[in-house]
Amino acid sequence: MKPIRNTIAVLAITLAGFTSTYAQDQLPSWNDGATKQSIVNFVAKVTKEGSPDFVPPAERIATFDNDGTLWCEQPMYFQLLFALDRVKALAPQHPEWKDQEPFASLFKGDVQAALAGGEHAMVEIIMATHAGMTTTEFERIVRDWIATANHPKFKKPYTECVYQPMVELLAYLRANGFKTFIVSGGGIEFMRPWTEKAYGIPPEQVVGSSIKTKFEMRDGKPALVRLPEVDFIDDETGKPAGINSHIGRRPVAAFGNSDGDREMLEWTQAGGGARLMVLVHHDDAVREFAYGGESKIGTFSAALMAEAKEHKWTVISMKDDWKKIFPFEQ
Amino acid sequence: MKPIRNTIAVLAITLAGFTSTYAQDQLPSWNDGATKQSIVNFVAKVTKEGSPDFVPPAERIATFDNDGTLWCEQPMYFQLLFALDRVKALAPQHPEWKDQEPFASLFKGDVQAALAGGEHAMVEIIMATHAGMTTTEFERIVRDWIATANHPKFKKPYTECVYQPMVELLAYLRANGFKTFIVSGGGIEFMRPWTEKAYGIPPEQVVGSSIKTKFEMRDGKPALVRLPEVDFIDDETGKPAGINSHIGRRPVAAFGNSDGDREMLEWTQAGGGARLMVLVHHDDAVREFAYGGESKIGTFSAALMAEAKEHKWTVISMKDDWKKIFPFEQ
Repeated sequence: MKPIRNTIAVLAITLAGFTSTYAQDQLPSWNDGATKQSIVNFVAKVTKEGSPDFVPPAERIATFDNDGTLWCEQPMYFQLLFALDRVKALAPQHPEWKDQEPFASLFKGDVQAALAGGEHAMVEIIMATHAGMTTTEFERIVRDWIATANHPKFKKPYTECVYQPMVELLAYLRANGFKTFIVSGGGIEFMRPWTEKAYGIPPEQVVGSSIKTKFEMRDGKPALVRLPEVDFIDDETGKPAGINSHIGRRPVAAFGNSDGDREMLEWTQAGGGARLMVLVHHDDAVREFAYGGESKIGTFSAALMAEAKEHKWTVISMKDDWKKIFPFEQ
Repeated sequence: MKPIRNTIAVLAITLAGFTSTYAQDQLPSWNDGATKQSIVNFVAKVTKEGSPDFVPPAERIATFDNDGTLWCEQPMYFQLLFALDRVKALAPQHPEWKDQEPFASLFKGDVQAALAGGEHAMVEIIMATHAGMTTTEFERIVRDWIATANHPKFKKPYTECVYQPMVELLAYLRANGFKTFIVSGGGIEFMRPWTEKAYGIPPEQVVGSSIKTKFEMRDGKPALVRLPEVDFIDDETGKPAGINSHIGRRPVAAFGNSDGDREMLEWTQAGGGARLMVLVHHDDAVREFAYGGESKIGTFSAALMAEAKEHKWTVISMKDDWKKIFPFEQ
């Protein structure tokens, strides 16, 4: 038996080496270094049967914020750019908007003035453009927009303004038995029509903010009508609540990029055992945008950075850790 | 090449026959007949590549009501029996309940009087027993109860009071590429701790009614605290809304047993193309319970039966279509 055992042992070692090399190759847009290593080490640890850190496949839940974590969120949230395009498209049916804020400023091209009203102005724009139609109609509107609109700076469809290293990471985690979820402050029905194609994440694995719907018969057929009423805000303390409501298991890995993701990472870590908490830091003004701090979009406060250090969360430097940011880069 | 082609053709035919026989064998607790055939035919049709009715695997969503569809709901919803056990367990901490309805009647063993207050009394009992603890604590309470409590008539754990033919059907659908979901009026966090073991349905595929939760730090650790406030009622028109919120795709097959499932079946059928809508009819007083009509639990109104006929929904007669009802039957 001994020679056979030795052969098996050699084979096992060879395969282990192969697996590790393969893992590296699955993340070609990541520079080697501590950040990449922390991710690869975590995955190796939780997938190794017999290891004290082993996590059964059913419990390998990984959650990802979307805006600023999986795709770009500058010059403003893409969903807001969608809403602005909708305001323009709907303007002929709403002559009253001409003299009514925040719409009047929008027509003058002054987005900043339009949004000066803060959250109230934002909610008005969202409700005017995201409610009043059936879920089926809204899905079609999103599909049409995402297929035709281009990013103002990159001149590419929005679904190409995704982070190539994160797309690789999603596939790498799934290849290791993880179920990948989006947990975003963005609208759940704004994301679902395109996440499967862009990230390989199906609609049932997308958690987001929502407005209420109402079931009614329209022309003798059942329909869900979108109401101008907030149902759930999936941000900050809402993220653990959204995870609990939609997934019903605690993630073992969570990825974010801003103060809005803090509670999701805390909730993940509090599960105990091997956990991976990661923040994307936007520090590449040349290839993308450098921001964070107390910026209006994608706030990455000094307090969050301190917490990341204290809790040993992994912080991705887009500048140093990513070979490539967007798929369209040469 | 011809002999090889012939061999392949013969092999394909043999395999097709094998698959079909195999399908039949996967539903051993079903009597042969129109009901079983309608299910097997539907599955054959939507899984056959090239067929006009073919449904890609990602879209093979099947939703199941729970109470009265997957497990028994008599003499009353099991969750209510759980709540009554919790009232007894919590009584020492609530001396005021002694003189306070609906609790006073419960202590006298008069469940009917306790529930005479209707929905209000029910909500009071649920809130007193389901809220005020963290989600982690509630999960543990449910796990303990489900592991130890027995059904008053069958003297078996509740998770054995499931319908054997439906458990087979769930596995059969999954073997054919379907993703199976529970969509129940029952509490989402009451079901999740045991549905994976009982039905092979993981927590993230359970949709149900919910109460609100609040994120807070307890002893320096993040916790979700269950609030005595209704969040969502996943029944009647709530079922399509719950499906839309949690799954984000329309089911191609839906299974229920009462008026509370009507809108889910209508919503499923309205998707067009090949769809399967099924109702379980409780007509076996010997092996289970015969009820329906305008009964308080599991109402199956004459209007629903008329709609089922008009829309060609499949109605399962438990008496005629099921060889065996419970797994513990000899």
